[in-house]
Amino acid sequence: MKAVIVKPGEKGATFSDVEIKEDQIKGEEVKIKTLRVGICGTDRGIVNGKLDFARPPAGYNFLVLGHEGLGRVEEVGDKVTSLKEGDLVVPVVRRGCGKCLNCKIGRQDFCETGEFVEAGIRGMHGFMREEFVDDAKYLVKVPRDLGELAVLAEPLSNVMKAFDELIFIQKRSIWHCEDSSYGCRNATIIGSGPIAQFFAMTFEANRFNVTMLNRRDPNEIEEKISRTVGYKFVNTSNGLDEVPESDVIVDTSGYPSAFIPLIKKLKRNGALILFGTVGGEKSEITSDMITKFVEYNIVVIGSVNASKLNFEEGLSYLSLWKARYGDVLRSMITKVVKPEETQSAVLDKAKGSIKTIIEWD
Amino acid sequence: MKAVIVKPGEKGATFSDVEIKEDQIKGEEVKIKTLRVGICGTDRGIVNGKLDFARPPAGYNFLVLGHEGLGRVEEVGDKVTSLKEGDLVVPVVRRGCGKCLNCKIGRQDFCETGEFVEAGIRGMHGFMREEFVDDAKYLVKVPRDLGELAVLAEPLSNVMKAFDELIFIQKRSIWHCEDSSYGCRNATIIGSGPIAQFFAMTFEANRFNVTMLNRRDPNEIEEKISRTVGYKFVNTSNGLDEVPESDVIVDTSGYPSAFIPLIKKLKRNGALILFGTVGGEKSEITSDMITKFVEYNIVVIGSVNASKLNFEEGLSYLSLWKARYGDVLRSMITKVVKPEETQSAVLDKAKGSIKTIIEWD
Amino acid sequence: MKAVIVKPGEKGATFSDVEIKEDQIKGEEVKIKTLRVGICGTDRGIVNGKLDFARPPAGYNFLVLGHEGLGRVEEVGDKVTSLKEGDLVVPVVRRGCGKCLNCKIGRQDFCETGEFVEAGIRGMHGFMREEFVDDAKYLVKVPRDLGELAVLAEPLSNVMKAFDELIFIQKRSIWHCEDSSYGCRNATIIGSGPIAQFFAMTFEANRFNVTMLNRRDPNEIEEKISRTVGYKFVNTSNGLDEVPESDVIVDTSGYPSAFIPLIKKLKRNGALILFGTVGGEKSEITSDMITKFVEYNIVVIGSVNASKLNFEEGLSYLSLWKARYGDVLRSMITKVVKPEETQSAVLDKAKGSIKTIIEWD
Amino acid sequence: MKAVIVKPGEKGATFSDVEIKEDQIKGEEVKIKTLRVGICGTDRGIVNGKLDFARPPAGYNFLVLGHEGLGRVEEVGDKVTSLKEGDLVVPVVRRGCGKCLNCKIGRQDFCETGEFVEAGIRGMHGFMREEFVDDAKYLVKVPRDLGELAVLAEPLSNVMKAFDELIFIQKRSIWHCEDSSYGCRNATIIGSGPIAQFFAMTFEANRFNVTMLNRRDPNEIEEKISRTVGYKFVNTSNGLDEVPESDVIVDTSGYPSAFIPLIKKLKRNGALILFGTVGGEKSEITSDMITKFVEYNIVVIGSVNASKLNFEEGLSYLSLWKARYGDVLRSMITKVVKPEETQSAVLDKAKGSIKTIIEWD
Repeated sequence: MKAVIVKPGEKGATFSDVEIKEDQIKGEEVKIKTLRVGICGTDRGIVNGKLDFARPPAGYNFLVLGHEGLGRVEEVGDKVTSLKEGDLVVPVVRRGCGKCLNCKIGRQDFCETGEFVEAGIRGMHGFMREEFVDDAKYLVKVPRDLGELAVLAEPLSNVMKAFDELIFIQKRSIWHCEDSSYGCRNATIIGSGPIAQFFAMTFEANRFNVTMLNRRDPNEIEEKISRTVGYKFVNTSNGLDEVPESDVIVDTSGYPSAFIPLIKKLKRNGALILFGTVGGEKSEITSDMITKFVEYNIVVIGSVNASKLNFEEGLSYLSLWKARYGDVLRSMITKVVKPEETQSAVLDKAKGSIKTIIEWD
Repeated sequence: MKAVIVKPGEKGATFSDVEIKEDQIKGEEVKIKTLRVGICGTDRGIVNGKLDFARPPAGYNFLVLGHEGLGRVEEVGDKVTSLKEGDLVVPVVRRGCGKCLNCKIGRQDFCETGEFVEAGIRGMHGFMREEFVDDAKYLVKVPRDLGELAVLAEPLSNVMKAFDELIFIQKRSIWHCEDSSYGCRNATIIGSGPIAQFFAMTFEANRFNVTMLNRRDPNEIEEKISRTVGYKFVNTSNGLDEVPESDVIVDTSGYPSAFIPLIKKLKRNGALILFGTVGGEKSEITSDMITKFVEYNIVVIGSVNASKLNFEEGLSYLSLWKARYGDVLRSMITKVVKPEETQSAVLDKAKGSIKTIIEWD
Repeated sequence: MKAVIVKPGEKGATFSDVEIKEDQIKGEEVKIKTLRVGICGTDRGIVNGKLDFARPPAGYNFLVLGHEGLGRVEEVGDKVTSLKEGDLVVPVVRRGCGKCLNCKIGRQDFCETGEFVEAGIRGMHGFMREEFVDDAKYLVKVPRDLGELAVLAEPLSNVMKAFDELIFIQKRSIWHCEDSSYGCRNATIIGSGPIAQFFAMTFEANRFNVTMLNRRDPNEIEEKISRTVGYKFVNTSNGLDEVPESDVIVDTSGYPSAFIPLIKKLKRNGALILFGTVGGEKSEITSDMITKFVEYNIVVIGSVNASKLNFEEGLSYLSLWKARYGDVLRSMITKVVKPEETQSAVLDKAKGSIKTIIEWD
Repeated sequence: MKAVIVKPGEKGATFSDVEIKEDQIKGEEVKIKTLRVGICGTDRGIVNGKLDFARPPAGYNFLVLGHEGLGRVEEVGDKVTSLKEGDLVVPVVRRGCGKCLNCKIGRQDFCETGEFVEAGIRGMHGFMREEFVDDAKYLVKVPRDLGELAVLAEPLSNVMKAFDELIFIQKRSIWHCEDSSYGCRNATIIGSGPIAQFFAMTFEANRFNVTMLNRRDPNEIEEKISRTVGYKFVNTSNGLDEVPESDVIVDTSGYPSAFIPLIKKLKRNGALILFGTVGGEKSEITSDMITKFVEYNIVVIGSVNASKLNFEEGLSYLSLWKARYGDVLRSMITKVVKPEETQSAVLDKAKGSIKTIIEWD
């Protein structure tokens, strides 16, 4: 079948005819026709040959790319009860090691051995291919109202996991406001890409006061989203004066130089969520910062990946935002390409673009 | 009465006759005769004039030092039911702002306004004086079996808070072992002072495998404690090879240069507890470390102070350790001085000493 | 102004002209024009003179009825920043005692003294009047997409509280499914009134398998809702064979005779939520039931009232359901009356009706 | 070897020579010489033929009795690192089904399938035999200071589980006191057997105010324990006037008639722990009680069994109580018998006795 593939040791991605062994659908298996696949920074890293953990499944010399999938059920095995032909589904990305306790209970996002595989990333083919077969338990059913917007579920799922973890961890003290809500809390998001936008929307939906930071003014789409959703956009190239004292700061950039200067804005009992990953930067911290972390009871939370529950939560938020914000979600999809255009779409990130989606059907 | 005092802007501590207004004992008040007061790094900082937050209570030009107190109840107000004459008590150090939600529910260790006072530190006289009056609700009754060892309750209370917070936060994933215990978890403690020893004992009591790190070999007392309690002492001046992969690392030093090299020893879902505070150091972090924090779901927990509940927990652990380890706790008290010797005891930290106690009775 | 009032010791409710002292709007105060008020079983109990806790506010010989409110902001005090003229708002019902810890932190739904007041129920006028003044902190802003459907927020808020509590309590063990979701869990709801419907929708939204029980077949509206939302309706007058083994059973009836026979359907680690309250029934329990509760680690959760956070959550679910289920929410409002028709609307509960709403504008 | 056995369908227990297949010790296995075994109500039920779930292991026509074990390590397999010859150990009773999520993570006390086995009870030989072989992961190492008192660890472990669950569940609201402790909370224990005594001591250790109830005056030993530990003993045959309003009530009796009258003593946000199991009683509940459960946010917690962590916690409490209460724990052991006296010791529960122990060495 046709698929977008990468090969170990080679840069670039090709749209090729590949052979992938797949037997007849049976038991808990489901055959899915691919409809949409999103592209993200991890894909870019793989195609650029920069992610050393990217690797094909055993027995293959190529890896099918793509982990932000959306498909339609074509056929179900005889033991599948939760899905039927025609259902839209989003596949979970990471598959557990089967050994550690977290993987045994479906929380492979907290895999302890590191022996997991991830579709389209390490050890398992991704979703940039005409069709694929998966176990029903890794497929999340998409509610009727969402349609192709469900392609956003995967990136959002990771935000859900981080947000849920934050709310859980912050129950170490009383962190809600005098009226039991989060209306008095300030959330500051570093970055303005799709992950940053989802963080902003999630905090807004939970009634935090949200500020988004970038080192430039918002572009037209960012301007529209922030106005519709109701958060503030601050250009930090002019300094941090406009950044409010914050109860939570989310870094989606991965650059220490982006979040370290903001530590001074963190309030007592505050949290710093680390979400972004990049390579090659160094930055300085001082013992005074550490003293602040101690004296202020600050937590730093590194967060990666998501469980199936987080996908389901993400789909609920997508429905909610579609109802509340009209076409804001759709406008986050700034580019739609054909499968054969994948390489250029991955490599040429257009300025001001937010999300690029591949249309397979 | 006689008290050990410090004055703003002046280095040193004097043992002087001071006048402190105290009316007749009434209502919930309790008069306490001081028996023992411990000395710690914070006292050293204050006497050295290095802690800019140290300040006398309103209406005084001096501050009575001392926050690790132990006393005997001399007289109780007419509404006190929980204490009676002769009871040993340990006073809580921090008193809440009365405004924020955490202070309203007795969790002033999570005060959000910063407007708390702390006995012997900021805005409230400490316990290095012949006697003091306090509200019953700030006094923790000492079980009969402990006696003067209860002077260790205050430093230990802060360890309890950090430990409880760790266990709570780590419930974000399955962190216990296959058999429901913590027997498979490695805890590594940076430092070997009293706080480090208490962390080591607390983790051991909860059946973690404990390693203590310092840049030298253990002295005789440290050697004895580690052998009796059952943990390993590693001299890191020879490198980190002997430091195990760790599920939790506790820094009691405050130096970024001490804990940053150990980040590579942190396991997935691990935690770094920041407890120590010093000034004046800078250190480098890289975006690779940040990537590890993200990919490994690592949390960093800054932790300060303790609630009354933590004092009670600390007293239980002291009883337990006294029962299990014989005179180990007593041997942690490496020096006992008279009140008039306080300044020299504070300033001349003897090499290899662990805890210095002032004997008031 | 015109209001629907009840008087202590008298049955019935009258639509009368009343005088209610209200000074000029200042500080955190907000003046609200009433738009919609829902009627529920508590109103029925009050009008029937059956609820002995119903009472007027101090200084009044009557009580304005109504606690399921929805209004439009007419005027805001000079310190109000969270609301502006024209905003739709839902008022919180219970106001805390100001003394216990839960009330001090905005969780008056867990008031420990019992000295709270409740709008339209005890000690505080309700919302069945032309307009009312309230503090901003008790007003929940309604998202634009909901409009008058927000009148359902109050009953739903109580369901949110119970659901959140369930999910929290069930974290005592692993209660999620092998894939981290709740897709393997069966929730059984006793009753088919508005509260039962909201429970069913909430469990469905969280992907539980839901069964609704009544002692009769569903009427046309119930049939429509269950079909659209996707749950099963079982008529238990024919026995309990069709009731599945359940992980959670919610009683909305208050009759021990309704839920006691269902205890045999409760699975290990299961939960029984008690939500309904009625008077005058007796029922038998056996020590075998108690043995099952013990051996099966079963919890029973009595749950009442809701915090402001629960109102906000409810509004999000209403938006979600409106997006997913079309006019299902609207069809739950089976009757709309004018204020002057309140008494008959309260007393003559039409067969098969779900929710009656008073239209004020 | 010599063992105390029961046979299906036969009443009574015999001290017999039996053959139990045991290969050479290897891998994670440990051979243990039995030192002490406690007797409890479950043993009584089995010997009386009243517990229908009691059954031999597969391949045997008898069951070795005894689940409250204490032994000394005789030999360890080549992969055992946590134990060595001479160590005292307490074996865990329940062994998981290997299928459900809770069993997969070492929380077989929350087994969901019911397919667990329990040593000396169902499907697995117990510890009333000269020696036994077990996997290291089911053995809890006993601290040096405890010695034979560790035979109390098993019954106490179940109390630990229930207590931990209570504290966890009660975090649904603020349940601690104004000073962060539990000093303002009243715990009432129904019954005065060993489980009741352990509940009383556990609540006392956590600074609750404890009242123990029985329908008679305390006997001499109960009197001594309550005086030493510091709780009140109330004879309820004279009515419930002396029973305080309670934040938590623990039923260790299993009789609905014992705890139902006490529901009126439960405070808002209170908890009723169900721990006892008996057969054959009926009792009446009213819809008013159910209304109270709802309006007061009351939880009922059925609790059974314990995880290995709870055994470790229990051993810590035993050390603590030994240190604090002198010979109180020892005085709870009111009778010591030889293995050959087991049947009469099980069947003739002496009046006023608390715990009977079999001495094997």
